[in-house]
Amino acid sequence: MSASPARPATPPSINQPHGRRIFNFSAGPCTLPVPVLEQLRDQMLNHTDADGPHGMGLIEMSHRSKPVQRVRDEAVSLLREVLHVPDTHHVAFIGGGATMQFGMVPMNLLHPSRRAAYADLGAWSTKAIKDARTIGEVDVVFDGSQHDYMSMPEPADLTCDDDAAYLHLCSNETIAGLQMKSFPRVAPPLVCDMSSDFLSRPIDVADFGLIYAGAQKNIGPAGVAVIIIADDLMQQARTDQVGYLNYAGHVKGDSMLNTPPVFQIWAVGLVLAWLRDQGGLAWAQQQAEARSRIVYDAIADSGGFYRCPVDERFRSQMNITFRLPDEALEARFIREADDAGMSGLKGHRSVGGCRASLYNAMPLEGARALSDFMGSFAAANG
Amino acid sequence: MSASPARPATPPSINQPHGRRIFNFSAGPCTLPVPVLEQLRDQMLNHTDADGPHGMGLIEMSHRSKPVQRVRDEAVSLLREVLHVPDTHHVAFIGGGATMQFGMVPMNLLHPSRRAAYADLGAWSTKAIKDARTIGEVDVVFDGSQHDYMSMPEPADLTCDDDAAYLHLCSNETIAGLQMKSFPRVAPPLVCDMSSDFLSRPIDVADFGLIYAGAQKNIGPAGVAVIIIADDLMQQARTDQVGYLNYAGHVKGDSMLNTPPVFQIWAVGLVLAWLRDQGGLAWAQQQAEARSRIVYDAIADSGGFYRCPVDERFRSQMNITFRLPDEALEARFIREADDAGMSGLKGHRSVGGCRASLYNAMPLEGARALSDFMGSFAAANG
Repeated sequence: MSASPARPATPPSINQPHGRRIFNFSAGPCTLPVPVLEQLRDQMLNHTDADGPHGMGLIEMSHRSKPVQRVRDEAVSLLREVLHVPDTHHVAFIGGGATMQFGMVPMNLLHPSRRAAYADLGAWSTKAIKDARTIGEVDVVFDGSQHDYMSMPEPADLTCDDDAAYLHLCSNETIAGLQMKSFPRVAPPLVCDMSSDFLSRPIDVADFGLIYAGAQKNIGPAGVAVIIIADDLMQQARTDQVGYLNYAGHVKGDSMLNTPPVFQIWAVGLVLAWLRDQGGLAWAQQQAEARSRIVYDAIADSGGFYRCPVDERFRSQMNITFRLPDEALEARFIREADDAGMSGLKGHRSVGGCRASLYNAMPLEGARALSDFMGSFAAANG
Repeated sequence: MSASPARPATPPSINQPHGRRIFNFSAGPCTLPVPVLEQLRDQMLNHTDADGPHGMGLIEMSHRSKPVQRVRDEAVSLLREVLHVPDTHHVAFIGGGATMQFGMVPMNLLHPSRRAAYADLGAWSTKAIKDARTIGEVDVVFDGSQHDYMSMPEPADLTCDDDAAYLHLCSNETIAGLQMKSFPRVAPPLVCDMSSDFLSRPIDVADFGLIYAGAQKNIGPAGVAVIIIADDLMQQARTDQVGYLNYAGHVKGDSMLNTPPVFQIWAVGLVLAWLRDQGGLAWAQQQAEARSRIVYDAIADSGGFYRCPVDERFRSQMNITFRLPDEALEARFIREADDAGMSGLKGHRSVGGCRASLYNAMPLEGARALSDFMGSFAAANG
């Protein structure tokens, strides 16, 4: 069946000139700001910057050319500005995504004589732990599997040995929809995978030894990771890896140790300029709170038709998971939402159910449309 | 000065609707086919495939979605078709480029009890050797530095121990412009970095254990490497790396072990479709021969004004290096060529001089324009 008894109160209608754009609730890769996509489109064959049109696209240019270096410089500078990155920390873009960082972190920071502390907060933490164990000794300081990854300790209760090489955290686990609301204070450097809530709220970068994030949530297309590393941590890092896997090499090479993924760095820079113009991280946080409140309220107001399985204290503002009374209804919900112009609502294949991901580029209108649809669907099927 | 006494006989004029396109002789990233750039542009906000328009761009979609999987499948299938990849070999796309492959090769194929053989044919070979030495024992079977990397042995003279884990080659060294015209036959598997002449000529894939290539020359934008690996070699490979660096993981994950660089895979698929439609590798080879002959002839016919320092037997059809009587003239040549709409002619910073890179997407018209310009410049300055 494809006819839907439930219609969204606000029909998806953004950006009509390019055809009907739908509301994309995918967990990542995910929706990007329309003005960013328009700039990527309009400059694809003839990159134009302060020096005028160049007669070719940016992705065709040498990475040593002035236009590409300028795009890289602007992306780094905008990230420093938007996130208030202090001078103690370096920024670099590295092709390959956060999964590669799971390996790079211990290959750089876990010296043979040391042990690393990891909190196992979900599937992404688990992958990071697996990689770290191929490199050295790991202490798992919290085992979220005991809670089906639906809860975690308060930050003050997340502790580790003072002589650990680092404490590794994942600030937002996308599969359950579990988010750290603040961060522990421990003696070792904090290393944090922020892939899925990076740039969704202000943080104090000085509290971290290393932050890394795959781009494909709040900051751009898949294929690049951003790293922010404290100079002192980088100076003490191991140097016995192959060249591509050494953080210092990427930092010293100004993100051009090798030919970088120019397209992604370009797109990230455009997203950062868009984010700054919207109001930066204060705006992002306000939007994330408002968007997620709309959907969590739709769950709470459904009289039990929708149910979020996550500990209320740690519910994510980025990924909202919910169940319906049975799996047949969940399948129908996802199908009818899709017919109504709302895609990507299927939960991760490992847990089932439904998931709405609400990243920076998702307009409030999208959250409202989903909330309206949820209400109508519950009324028709409850 | 910016006025030029030399004007190209054929003014660059391709693709006028998007503004004046110049002839881009960059060594990589490099010129891409205009129809490919047009498709990337036109679909940026609303990806359309056999299922119709999707209401979002491909780079916004989950990599588990049907449209992205279809794009990945088509790219793999086209590569198999164009290159005649036999069933004995797997194909995978891996985010990160060829520099990362310098490390992945020994991390997968150089077992602790074995030694790897490397031919040092230029700067890229040298980097690969450096990485291999961080992993295990290496025998350098040819040292091109003795010849300033301007020559190499005939294939029959490139030998190695029968019990080497593999023999590593670089089929085309971009800095000098040195290209292997055929490949040695040795007992160990051949591992070949084909980054800069991949898909420029037919090869027999069955002769290789592993082929790898960064995309940013003949096949697409920077940010992804393609690997082609023999199943038996992959089955015997080491499994003690972190997850991202294991070839079998990428093969078993159908290039989606992690969130891949979707944009690059999309672009590579479009380039492959374009290449197939032009006539495949027979066409590419014919074009490469014709283009490079035009420029090498311009050097030969200049009465010594231009000089190619590379052994005639191994001159590259992809990257043509040449010197002028002095460095001041070289600087002037590069500047005036740029003014005439021909960019990227500066030699690599490590060797100086001039270099014209002529990849698949460079039309014959571009080689002719360069030849005409070279003739006029020599007449005016000789």
